[in-house]
Amino acid sequence: MSFPADATVSEAGEFPLIERLRDLFPQGEQVLVGPGDDAAVLRIRQGHVVVSTDVLVENRHFRRDWASAADIGHRAAAANLSDVNAMGGRAHSLTIGLAAPRDLPAQWALDFAAGFAEECALVGASVVGGDLTSAEEVVVAVTVIGSCLQSPVLRSGARPGDVLALAGRQGWAAGGLAVLGRGFRSPRILVEAYRRPEPPYDEGAAAAEAGATAMIDVSDGLLAEARHLAEASGVAIDVRRDAFEIPEPLHAVGAALGADPIQFILGGGDDHALLATFPDAPPAGWLVIGSVTSGSAVTVDGAAYDGPTGWTHF
Amino acid sequence: MSFPADATVSEAGEFPLIERLRDLFPQGEQVLVGPGDDAAVLRIRQGHVVVSTDVLVENRHFRRDWASAADIGHRAAAANLSDVNAMGGRAHSLTIGLAAPRDLPAQWALDFAAGFAEECALVGASVVGGDLTSAEEVVVAVTVIGSCLQSPVLRSGARPGDVLALAGRQGWAAGGLAVLGRGFRSPRILVEAYRRPEPPYDEGAAAAEAGATAMIDVSDGLLAEARHLAEASGVAIDVRRDAFEIPEPLHAVGAALGADPIQFILGGGDDHALLATFPDAPPAGWLVIGSVTSGSAVTVDGAAYDGPTGWTHF
Repeated sequence: MSFPADATVSEAGEFPLIERLRDLFPQGEQVLVGPGDDAAVLRIRQGHVVVSTDVLVENRHFRRDWASAADIGHRAAAANLSDVNAMGGRAHSLTIGLAAPRDLPAQWALDFAAGFAEECALVGASVVGGDLTSAEEVVVAVTVIGSCLQSPVLRSGARPGDVLALAGRQGWAAGGLAVLGRGFRSPRILVEAYRRPEPPYDEGAAAAEAGATAMIDVSDGLLAEARHLAEASGVAIDVRRDAFEIPEPLHAVGAALGADPIQFILGGGDDHALLATFPDAPPAGWLVIGSVTSGSAVTVDGAAYDGPTGWTHF
Repeated sequence: MSFPADATVSEAGEFPLIERLRDLFPQGEQVLVGPGDDAAVLRIRQGHVVVSTDVLVENRHFRRDWASAADIGHRAAAANLSDVNAMGGRAHSLTIGLAAPRDLPAQWALDFAAGFAEECALVGASVVGGDLTSAEEVVVAVTVIGSCLQSPVLRSGARPGDVLALAGRQGWAAGGLAVLGRGFRSPRILVEAYRRPEPPYDEGAAAAEAGATAMIDVSDGLLAEARHLAEASGVAIDVRRDAFEIPEPLHAVGAALGADPIQFILGGGDDHALLATFPDAPPAGWLVIGSVTSGSAVTVDGAAYDGPTGWTHF
């Protein structure tokens, strides 16, 4: 079925649009039945099954004028794939629920789906089902299913004496978001980091194999996630400022906005870095950024931190 | 954590509300890690895994003044459990994404979750994860995961010569919706059928065991679903009006609204009945309502039907 390139989702119609969307989603070998029936059918061979879900709302989690539809698709997929990464698992199957205003360009939905599929392809995962409906604003609900070959790494396993380590870029997306929020489009490398995060997809399973005791993905902010780890594990965590080499573009943004650039690193999410604890030195690709002790506080250089620590949804 | 009984979700706060919500969801034996980590962890023993997702939007799929929060929770769960039912499977795990306006009463979210959990308990399924965020209107995104012990029953297996059969109430919820739409609250039995559908949860697996060739759940309207079956299977389907005994309350609503009550049955969804095809007589609990022939049309008593056939989302 086809519709004009400039059709809205309402003009395109539910079923023709769904058919076009489906064509964008190649199906992996675990998929016995893909989109189009009452449910998808998967063959899952071994290991533990991990499941996570995320809801992204326009003007809260993304803005259509700050990133292309394809970028937003990449980000939505990355946010969910990262949750499986943080268990030490590998994602294989996702579903997308898309609620869209009637006047949303159908092409936006198609570009979003193409970006989403492209991000999923980075880890070999397939979009196996979805739902499309109308709403006042764009809402994207994603569920991801993955497998862990070894025991999943929870938030609750950190122990005093462990080292705290980080994999992936951290603070870049927050820097990009900060400049977009002021109406700028540069430094371009930070804006791009926000638009298309590059989560360290190989590092979750690598950390699990290396004996990580606890792990979480940094989506709400580094110190906020450290607090989640500390609370779940019943430990204290100290983060060391001098562990981070602040990249030049973050210095530039800090100077332009009158902010200490370490704030982007300590308070930023959106890069979907991984934060984990290890009894010994972490594997290559991980940066030691602090330590785990007994207690319950999250501190920076041994003291309470009074900058922004992350994002809350209400 | 606690908050006043009359708090809004914004006043309650994301994490205290999530904590209270979690307490409403008992975890089944397949759940190794429930809500609260980056992902839930499941142990899935055998069979095919089926996955489906649905998005429900306030004032499109439900109205807060037409049904209680608990009712809406029941309906949201039923809609998704029914998709697994229609594959011949049994649901075991669900995730809920809830986007809510900041001024939504926190109690609404709690009552919704309690109703949702109660419906899931009917089939022994658990809510294993979720996400909570703010939005302009209430959006509920549900993903359900289930298992099929035998091969899943698809939409595409109907063959000429099969009988068409229905399990569960059909048209009751549409009758209830019609009276609610006119501002009435009776007949109460129909309004209740809309508010709390009673999908035939045991009949999906029973149909699969009995050799059903194709199956679908009736959520968009009986004739609309018959068309989905016919198109997926490459067959024609004829539905016989005289197969249905029109229940007294539907007669009453038809008379009050000046509508032929068969319209509620032929065009109604929301009861989450099952529509299936069988090579022979269906098992007990199923009503033969038509037949499968070669061709591609969906007809009623052998002729084109010009009444409403179902629901589209744009």
